Amino acid sequence: MEKIDIKTTHRAELVDITAKIQAIVARAKVGSGACLIFCPHTTAGLTINENADPSVKSDMINTLNGLIPENAGYAHNEGNSDSHIKSSLFGSSLTIFVEENKLCLGTWQGIYFCESDGPRSRQAWVKVLKD
Amino acid sequence: MEKIDIKTTHRAELVDITAKIQAIVARAKVGSGACLIFCPHTTAGLTINENADPSVKSDMINTLNGLIPENAGYAHNEGNSDSHIKSSLFGSSLTIFVEENKLCLGTWQGIYFCESDGPRSRQAWVKVLKD
Amino acid sequence: MEKIDIKTTHRAELVDITAKIQAIVARAKVGSGACLIFCPHTTAGLTINENADPSVKSDMINTLNGLIPENAGYAHNEGNSDSHIKSSLFGSSLTIFVEENKLCLGTWQGIYFCESDGPRSRQAWVKVLKD
Repeated sequence: MEKIDIKTTHRAELVDITAKIQAIVARAKVGSGACLIFCPHTTAGLTINENADPSVKSDMINTLNGLIPENAGYAHNEGNSDSHIKSSLFGSSLTIFVEENKLCLGTWQGIYFCESDGPRSRQAWVKVLKD
Repeated sequence: MEKIDIKTTHRAELVDITAKIQAIVARAKVGSGACLIFCPHTTAGLTINENADPSVKSDMINTLNGLIPENAGYAHNEGNSDSHIKSSLFGSSLTIFVEENKLCLGTWQGIYFCESDGPRSRQAWVKVLKD
Repeated sequence: MEKIDIKTTHRAELVDITAKIQAIVARAKVGSGACLIFCPHTTAGLTINENADPSVKSDMINTLNGLIPENAGYAHNEGNSDSHIKSSLFGSSLTIFVEENKLCLGTWQGIYFCESDGPRSRQAWVKVLKD
C-alpha cells in the first residue's frame, strides 16, 4: 500500500489527485490490472468527476452545502455532522482499471479527494493489483 | 477490459445492464472471482437496485431531480451541473462477486447505468478477476 | 464467499459490522490483500463512518430522512421508495485494504450496514483477496 499526503486549504474542497495516483500506477508496473484508492477519514471522501471547468467543483460543494448545511441542529457536538454525512455520500473507495501501466479514465474524468471538514492534513491510500 | 455500449433515450434514465454484464462474466470463465464495472462518464453513474417494479426507478429519478434540480443558478454554464452532482452520488464503480461463472446478486437486485444528461451514446467498462 | 447474518431492529439503523468483517479477514490469512463487502439487498447499503460518537449515526439517519422522507407521494406502492433511494446513495459495495491479516481502517472508521427498511434479517457478503 502506498500513501499520498494531501494538504487541504478550505473547509470544503475537491482536490484533484489524478497525477499522484497515476505516478503510483506507473511505478507499480503491473501492466494490466486495477487501482484501488481508499480514504481513511470519516469527514472526507473520494469521487471521480469533471477535470476541466472548476465551476463543476464549486457547484457540487454549494449544492451539497444547501442540502446538508454545516449548522442544522445536529446531535453530534463537534460541528462536523454535515462532513460525516457528505463523506458517506461520496464514499470511501474507488476502483479504476489499469492498462499499459496507465489509469483508464474517461476523457473528462479526474480523481478527487473530497474534503468536507478542512483545512487538514489528509491521506489517500492506494494499491495496484495485477490482473 | 470489455466495453458495453449503451444508448440512452432520456435526459435521466436508469438502464438495466445486468444481462450484458452477465454475458461478459459467462465468457470470462473465471469460475469464482469478482466483476468490476466502471462508468467513464462524468454526468452518469452506476448503481444496483430493484429489478422488478419500474416505479422504483421513476421514484429515484424524480426524488433526485427534486433535491438537485436541472436549473438552480449553477456556475457551470453547460446546463448539466445537476448531472455531474448526481454522477458523484451514484458513484463510478461497482464490485460484484462471481461464483460458478455467475454474478452473485440478491433476489431483487439489477445493475443499472444511471444516465443523468442524456440522451447519449454511453459505455460501461467491465473486468472479471479470478480469485 | 462468506456470509454474515445481520438482525436489524429499527426501520433505519446503522449496524457496526467491523468486528464480524475483521474475524473473516483473520481467518482468511491472506497476509496482504483486499477485503470486498457486498450488500445483496435493495433497501439497505454499506458505508464507512465514525465509530465513536453514536450521535453521528442518528444525525445521518435524521438528515437523510429529512431529504428523502418515508412518505412523499411515491409511485412504488410498497411504502419503501425512500429506502431504495437511500440504498443507492450509500452504495452496495466496499473495498478495504488488508495488511498482516488486519483491515486497514482509519482511526475513527467503522464499517456499517445501513438498514433503511427494517427491522429485517439481512446479510452482508464478504471476500478476501490476496495481493
